[in-house]
Amino acid sequence: MAVSTHRTRVEALCPYRLVLEHVTSRWGVLVLIALEQRSYRFSELRRAIDETSRVSEKSLTQTLQTLERDGLVHRDAKPVIPPRVDYSLTELGREAAEQVRTLATWTERRMADVEQARTAYDEARS
Amino acid sequence: MAVSTHRTRVEALCPYRLVLEHVTSRWGVLVLIALEQRSYRFSELRRAIDETSRVSEKSLTQTLQTLERDGLVHRDAKPVIPPRVDYSLTELGREAAEQVRTLATWTERRMADVEQARTAYDEARS
Repeated sequence: MAVSTHRTRVEALCPYRLVLEHVTSRWGVLVLIALEQRSYRFSELRRAIDETSRVSEKSLTQTLQTLERDGLVHRDAKPVIPPRVDYSLTELGREAAEQVRTLATWTERRMADVEQARTAYDEARS
Repeated sequence: MAVSTHRTRVEALCPYRLVLEHVTSRWGVLVLIALEQRSYRFSELRRAIDETSRVSEKSLTQTLQTLERDGLVHRDAKPVIPPRVDYSLTELGREAAEQVRTLATWTERRMADVEQARTAYDEARS
């Protein structure tokens, strides 16, 4: 088993919670949004995400494994030399990506309002 | 200032990221979904959320403060004895709640597919 006992227990108690965490995680959001456009090889995907936010090889690998395990990302390892691995969205992943992109876009669009609210909140308490 | 230097720095670097984290946090989701129905007093809200998931007074207080600071939740402290505080969504909070509810509902509805994918993934690796 690739999963720890702890993780399995959390999954049993609150299963939908973890999926929500995976798709809204820092790299989860960026991976889903990138793969919504087209399939990517690992190094290409890393470069694409790096344009927004620096991501380590390890973090990206873990994010992809998590999303693959949830059935959102398809990993296609081609038996060629040098090895070639393509990542794409499954049908389920496409549904997730669409919603996460909508939410992320909304957050960006409304950021000025949020910042204004924060300033007012902090000033009232300083 | 109520915020730490660290938090302010993260906000400056990646501002939209934190809002996304707030609205998709464990209690953030449940608070937004509850307040989408109607306004609540603190203790009522805590009972409503407890039906889904046990929440401590401290965690709920922090969640409400964070959402209030982001301009998503309105806190109305009435000058009566005993003190009465009502929480409701702002216009911005209503927009966030709608999207978060859609995403959470999707996650619940597609949970069986996710669980099937996880079982297949784990079995292929055990």
